[in-house]
Amino acid sequence: MTTQQLIEQIQKKKSFLCIGLDVDLKKIPQHLLELEDPIFEFNKAIIDSTHDLCVSYKPNTAFYEAYGIKGWQSLQKTIEYINQNYPEIFTIADAKRGDIGNTSTMYAKAFLEDLNFDSVTVAPYMGKDSVEPFLAFEDKHTIMLALTSNEGAFDFQTKNCGGKELYKIVIETSKTWKNSENLMYVVGATKAEYFSEIRKIIPTSFLLVPGVGAQGGSLKEVCKFGMTSNVGLLINSSRAIIYASNGYDFAEKAREEALKIQTEMKKILIH
Amino acid sequence: MTTQQLIEQIQKKKSFLCIGLDVDLKKIPQHLLELEDPIFEFNKAIIDSTHDLCVSYKPNTAFYEAYGIKGWQSLQKTIEYINQNYPEIFTIADAKRGDIGNTSTMYAKAFLEDLNFDSVTVAPYMGKDSVEPFLAFEDKHTIMLALTSNEGAFDFQTKNCGGKELYKIVIETSKTWKNSENLMYVVGATKAEYFSEIRKIIPTSFLLVPGVGAQGGSLKEVCKFGMTSNVGLLINSSRAIIYASNGYDFAEKAREEALKIQTEMKKILIH
Repeated sequence: MTTQQLIEQIQKKKSFLCIGLDVDLKKIPQHLLELEDPIFEFNKAIIDSTHDLCVSYKPNTAFYEAYGIKGWQSLQKTIEYINQNYPEIFTIADAKRGDIGNTSTMYAKAFLEDLNFDSVTVAPYMGKDSVEPFLAFEDKHTIMLALTSNEGAFDFQTKNCGGKELYKIVIETSKTWKNSENLMYVVGATKAEYFSEIRKIIPTSFLLVPGVGAQGGSLKEVCKFGMTSNVGLLINSSRAIIYASNGYDFAEKAREEALKIQTEMKKILIH
Repeated sequence: MTTQQLIEQIQKKKSFLCIGLDVDLKKIPQHLLELEDPIFEFNKAIIDSTHDLCVSYKPNTAFYEAYGIKGWQSLQKTIEYINQNYPEIFTIADAKRGDIGNTSTMYAKAFLEDLNFDSVTVAPYMGKDSVEPFLAFEDKHTIMLALTSNEGAFDFQTKNCGGKELYKIVIETSKTWKNSENLMYVVGATKAEYFSEIRKIIPTSFLLVPGVGAQGGSLKEVCKFGMTSNVGLLINSSRAIIYASNGYDFAEKAREEALKIQTEMKKILIH
């Protein structure tokens, strides 16, 4: 999917919501556990009931790897289901990978080619040759960690490195990499005051924003400082939507939660 | 496995060699492709012919994920084979994972509990709460990226952050984390001059050292600056050993290459 197509979807749906499919068997409705592939069945129901309210789904690979081969089967079935039934959805493999060049190519192939995700999240620590292999895929996107939403973000990301915080150096440096027009960045919503700083460096790039809702970030604040003329934001919500209920009405309740956020987004977009 | 048990193995085998099982179907002997699980068969043959010369095997997960579910099956079979037949081997899942707390716990569970590796490599960018979940597992080890062997290491890892390079801040900071006695570090062999600096910060921690051989690093140089009284080094070699031949003699040739390195190590240890 091209960036332009993503922007069109945002305008059409009046939504820049990304739903995180972080499926934990301990948290999903227990009646699903009787089915052969509870994770996939859970995802399928969530997707069917929310796909018109969001523009993106983001499975975090940790939650699938935790169930071994069965988990990978669920991940594969989930991405295939989205690609077949809702090809207008921008899919994100939240994998936070990164390795030396030829090894990153293997990861890129796994997620962008074989599983056919539109994008994958990567970690920046190993530098240019660990990220460029992901950028090499046409009409695919690489979403690099810049400033994350967790407490540990302050351990290294905000360290002052020669008068500038590390996350700013990471963003600036990455702009010089090959095909950097396909780069997006993870910026946590819990740090809304940083968005205006970041927009000085990357005025138009898309930002994937976790931390709204459960982690305490404010949608309005993020939009105030982070939104561009093409929106430029994908706001992720996981737990608040997918675990809105753990009864038989879970998909319906998930839709209600997604609708609440989409309604707020619609107001911001129309305003 | 405890650190003490690893040290005993090193002393017994006169080796601190780790063999990287980075299996690429394009590079392995073509006659194996007729078998049902060529990756596992390749690993099994390499392991059977080298296990007495090394103390560790390190599959890089990228090479398995690239083959989807079949790849994960091969990874699972490989680690089970090692654990059942050579329980004295220190196993490393080279996964370079890291995410917010509860998500890192899922990764830790996948590699240290379900697959039952002795250790897993992690990326430091997200800080303390992304690494501590891995450290929580008893008699397991977390190997954190510090100074990697690739060119991109100079993009951020060696950035001067308030008078100190980032990789040093990463190492120093991590020493304060919970259960940090189970932390090891990745330090590339291509930067031997850095080892004495690193030993000032962590005089006894084990270092996993890629980059000897194919990537140009020198074993002697690394040992000169990086070795401790308990050795404190695991030197990884992947391609130079496992792809020594792509004919029917591949396992035999792999043994010859491993033996060359082990002989050099023996000299250093006895010296």
